[in-house]
Amino acid sequence: MTDQTPQARLERAKDASRATAALTSADKARVLEAIAAGLERDAERIIAANAVDIDRGRENAIGDSLIDRLRLDEKRVAALATAVREVAALPDPVGRVVGGHRMPNGVMLEQVRVPFGVVGAIYEARPNVTVDIAALALRSGNAAVLRGGSAARESNTVLVDVMREALVAAGVTPEAIQTVDDFGREGATALMQGRGYIDVLVPRGSAGLIETVVTQSTVPVIETGAGNVHIFLDESAPDDWARDIVMNAKVQRPSVCNAVETVLVHRQAAPRLVPLVASELQSEGVAIHGDDMVVGLVASVIPATEEDWKTEYLGLEIAIKVVDSLDDALDHIRRYSTGHTESIVSTDARSIERFLAEVDSAVVMANASTRFTDGAEFGFGAEVGISTQKLHARGPMGLAELTSTKWLARGAGQTRA
Amino acid sequence: MTDQTPQARLERAKDASRATAALTSADKARVLEAIAAGLERDAERIIAANAVDIDRGRENAIGDSLIDRLRLDEKRVAALATAVREVAALPDPVGRVVGGHRMPNGVMLEQVRVPFGVVGAIYEARPNVTVDIAALALRSGNAAVLRGGSAARESNTVLVDVMREALVAAGVTPEAIQTVDDFGREGATALMQGRGYIDVLVPRGSAGLIETVVTQSTVPVIETGAGNVHIFLDESAPDDWARDIVMNAKVQRPSVCNAVETVLVHRQAAPRLVPLVASELQSEGVAIHGDDMVVGLVASVIPATEEDWKTEYLGLEIAIKVVDSLDDALDHIRRYSTGHTESIVSTDARSIERFLAEVDSAVVMANASTRFTDGAEFGFGAEVGISTQKLHARGPMGLAELTSTKWLARGAGQTRA
Repeated sequence: MTDQTPQARLERAKDASRATAALTSADKARVLEAIAAGLERDAERIIAANAVDIDRGRENAIGDSLIDRLRLDEKRVAALATAVREVAALPDPVGRVVGGHRMPNGVMLEQVRVPFGVVGAIYEARPNVTVDIAALALRSGNAAVLRGGSAARESNTVLVDVMREALVAAGVTPEAIQTVDDFGREGATALMQGRGYIDVLVPRGSAGLIETVVTQSTVPVIETGAGNVHIFLDESAPDDWARDIVMNAKVQRPSVCNAVETVLVHRQAAPRLVPLVASELQSEGVAIHGDDMVVGLVASVIPATEEDWKTEYLGLEIAIKVVDSLDDALDHIRRYSTGHTESIVSTDARSIERFLAEVDSAVVMANASTRFTDGAEFGFGAEVGISTQKLHARGPMGLAELTSTKWLARGAGQTRA
Repeated sequence: MTDQTPQARLERAKDASRATAALTSADKARVLEAIAAGLERDAERIIAANAVDIDRGRENAIGDSLIDRLRLDEKRVAALATAVREVAALPDPVGRVVGGHRMPNGVMLEQVRVPFGVVGAIYEARPNVTVDIAALALRSGNAAVLRGGSAARESNTVLVDVMREALVAAGVTPEAIQTVDDFGREGATALMQGRGYIDVLVPRGSAGLIETVVTQSTVPVIETGAGNVHIFLDESAPDDWARDIVMNAKVQRPSVCNAVETVLVHRQAAPRLVPLVASELQSEGVAIHGDDMVVGLVASVIPATEEDWKTEYLGLEIAIKVVDSLDDALDHIRRYSTGHTESIVSTDARSIERFLAEVDSAVVMANASTRFTDGAEFGFGAEVGISTQKLHARGPMGLAELTSTKWLARGAGQTRA
């Protein structure tokens, strides 16, 4: 690609989106199979490019967990191809009639699912996102314009090349997948300001990245991901549910957005539950930040500060706070939650129903682990992200959330009285 | 209201939205009836305030059509009350279960409609919008923060006061309806930048106002209204359908967004249809801007410029252009349409199906007047606006489009494997 401007890429993506919108489900499955096969065939080339990114990352000392997210090896490239095939197997949302009726004057009205057109994505140095988003966009009939983290630039360049070659092989214009990585910051700006070209922009990554995209974009954005997730252990919380749910929500996979960050414990239950839960957490190496009462109940607790209530640790750390009542818990959640997922552990129907009704988050749970907030767990097959905004999509997003609708009206000369 | 800052109003609206979200359908109907009764009771006070706006408007020579939109008389205040009662009678979208299933592990998952929280609106000097938006927001369980045009400031102040008094009378916090009109531009900015307080912002008015709101907002916006609407008269268009549909779409109510602005005519049909349609339009006082062929076919046609293809006349003017083919018509529409409504007049199934599939607008019609793009015509009872964006809502928006969803998960101690 030798365009002089990112804008030229957006225009070509927009043109290509007319072609992708017209593809049948069978066409799209064929395109995705070509991409999966291309990834497998070019695995060596992909891994070689990735090695350049890894080396540069090491030189820049970007940290082991980031290096791990960045790395592509044979197994991971194979997993990418598998993921593309899974997306290819998902039901096609496009063309589904979702509403309609015959108007009293005889005009037939239908509301049908259509692709958005062009889906933009801005994300961090995770090359798997490059393939994920492209596959999801294509399956739902969209073109995609991608902007990945600069630390993954070599990997992303090759991944985009491989996918574009597969498009050509499948008889579809390669312009349906674009990257603006080579334009650096200017590329991101073009995406965020691409009114008329980018129909929806999905940021994926840190809270900081999401905030930047939301505040700087003039195109519609779906806000995803940031999860300052709470569990409230009510007075009636059974020992086993409290322990199992907190442990699962913190320890099973601490680095993800649906992991719990703060546990609120009813004062009446604190002497029973705090030592129980804390000792289990500590035995798994979780550092505990607690308020005064927690410090008094458990050894080796770090006194919590205001900052802890706001923090998404995304690691083996947790905050525990004792509250006087359900109302106090609701107040705390209202103040600090990012609106992702909260769960109450309780056997009291009054507390459960109030919690479910009053907590204003994408997913509100009773007596279940917050780790269930996930597209696959919700039965969507693949996940575009987890929306924490209220417009368009809220909670785990499936393929349908990458589509819009349009109204079709068929008449025989009707006019309005 | 004596708050020192618009931000304080947003905060109070957010607090109040917890109360409005908890109202039952019956509560909300009662609140709206109190508002309708209040409008009727205080009609004189409202009309007196409106007279001040009208006088100032006359001094500022704002033009007859704007004065007419601004004016409230006894009949119009009565119509406002009627409209509020109609909104009160609409089915409540809140609490509707729109999806869900039992997960394999037994967790029961439900997706339910919930209010957005706080709906913001920025609009021009039409006091009826003040009441419309407040009623629609309340019916759907939301609080509202309003910013109307400064030319309607006295009217809006009194209308908001009357509605707030009615809220108090109905036992609901008056903070559920706020205006930031008294802060001028600063009020609008607070709305557009009210992240965490404004859940959705709806601009209503001119293309310029909408553009400003879309580009300056960091809160989610639903873009509405601008309608550069096209009708394509295909080669096969019957005389009567062509004439009736164009006339109805232009003349029945020229000032609204679903009125047609440009008619495209297939070259083969131009000698037959252009004189027919043009003479009818001219007999109703419609000025015609036409390309060379139209100028050659009809007397008194103003030669069209590039500007005409872009113009939303919103009055008794129209542009007519001859095109060589359906493809040319699709190209023209792609270039100039605002994505609101387009209609083809044709008896040829191939042309109709291509037009319906390829035109990327909120509503695409065959053989029907574009004037049907309307919430009431679509059976929604009331209309929040007509969305021309693809995110969240597209086309006429009903009450459901002023709600979001949340997921509720009920378990019995389940954790993720």
